[in-house]
Amino acid sequence: MRWFKLTIAYDGGGFVGWQVQTNGRSVQQVLEDAIHGVTGERMRVTASGRTDSGVHALGQVVSFASATRLSAERLQAALNATLPHDVVVLDCRGRAGEFHAIRDCTRKRYRYLIHNSPVRGVFARQYAWHVPKPLEVAAMQQAAEPLLGRHDFSSFESTGAERRDSIRTVYELSLAAGPIDEQHAPLAHRADAAIAGRQITIEIEADGFLYNMVRAIVGTLVEVGRGAEQIGWPGEVLAARDRTQAGPTAPPHGLYLLRVWYE
Amino acid sequence: MRWFKLTIAYDGGGFVGWQVQTNGRSVQQVLEDAIHGVTGERMRVTASGRTDSGVHALGQVVSFASATRLSAERLQAALNATLPHDVVVLDCRGRAGEFHAIRDCTRKRYRYLIHNSPVRGVFARQYAWHVPKPLEVAAMQQAAEPLLGRHDFSSFESTGAERRDSIRTVYELSLAAGPIDEQHAPLAHRADAAIAGRQITIEIEADGFLYNMVRAIVGTLVEVGRGAEQIGWPGEVLAARDRTQAGPTAPPHGLYLLRVWYE
Repeated sequence: MRWFKLTIAYDGGGFVGWQVQTNGRSVQQVLEDAIHGVTGERMRVTASGRTDSGVHALGQVVSFASATRLSAERLQAALNATLPHDVVVLDCRGRAGEFHAIRDCTRKRYRYLIHNSPVRGVFARQYAWHVPKPLEVAAMQQAAEPLLGRHDFSSFESTGAERRDSIRTVYELSLAAGPIDEQHAPLAHRADAAIAGRQITIEIEADGFLYNMVRAIVGTLVEVGRGAEQIGWPGEVLAARDRTQAGPTAPPHGLYLLRVWYE
Repeated sequence: MRWFKLTIAYDGGGFVGWQVQTNGRSVQQVLEDAIHGVTGERMRVTASGRTDSGVHALGQVVSFASATRLSAERLQAALNATLPHDVVVLDCRGRAGEFHAIRDCTRKRYRYLIHNSPVRGVFARQYAWHVPKPLEVAAMQQAAEPLLGRHDFSSFESTGAERRDSIRTVYELSLAAGPIDEQHAPLAHRADAAIAGRQITIEIEADGFLYNMVRAIVGTLVEVGRGAEQIGWPGEVLAARDRTQAGPTAPPHGLYLLRVWYE
């Protein structure tokens, strides 16, 4: 048996989430089916973490052990030929020893996209949260500062999750605003001067994330951005260690698992 | 009666194209239905030009005359509340005199996106042409030069079209290559170093376009980019005035009507 590390991307819109469920199509299931189709083996694969229904991945990492004699390169090509169009294997590597995508993970980075425009977007509709009211990005960035570092993030954890502890270290929490050009390109030409608004990108990197933590943080920062709460409020929410204090959870379709690190 | 100018965007994936047809959902039909829902009027609306099935628009222009008393701003909001999620009115203006989107049009710009990577993209799958082999963009740019200016473009016109003449003036034909970061953002952080390849963007601006002209030009330039034809070949194809000389027509789902100009 040889251990493999897959880096995969998926469009979360057509899935009930990562994990196999009885009520719909899961990324885990279509990946296991593809591996079965290629190697003949039935197995359970492990991801760096579950993603919820609608959440996307640009760099999810998956581990499994297989008796296949295919090279990593051939295995990748065969899986991509077998997988449906909304899942792709970006990279496939054989590992010398054991490799466990969830156990060995040391750091993760998520991206969240907001379509901040009075007019909804047609291409963004499944890929960014539409917030019509103009957001104060500088205020949101300032409000995010108390969340950096090692803290108890239980105020930003959805109920129902089982965790040994709620202490996590946030290494980075950045916001950026750019022009809306929905299928944007290196060329500077805009579709039409009439498209008002901006795309706001939030990226968060930490040693681990609690359940719905990114979406709860984004929802809380947006309350500041739209002027409903003061700049100091997210820091107070953090200190309260009480989920009922935080803002609404941002919708799943703006969230992307961007990258996962291992030692 | 008052004339209106709408600037609209649509995701072409769910449509048989702009024009009303008996065999499926058209952009024209859903727009006419929305206007009927808002104003009670049944009418035919006109676009700057038809787009084929699968072709997208980021700045299509539509004209119609209406007896509505709604302001342009209210009409836009009401239409956007009524239209399905894959069509949106970006801008709505009342016009002092008559306005005909197709007759009065003086210039158009299209964008074509190529996902140039050995691995297919999950988010690009409906929004860019996947070309696995690395393309020589500098060679394609050089090959495109003879197409600039006023020429008979009949070599790049699909058969079946009725046109009085095939003379058009191409003002710009630019190519650019950028990194692949499918849901790319102002922040520089890449999803994963493993994502090889580039996004290639081609933009063409002209006083008018023949049927399938952009897709035929793109298909021809890609033949040069992948080394199947020499740099001088697209110029020879142009001079031949014979559609059978050109390269294959690029697929519709990479094409965007970007902008339309009026006097």
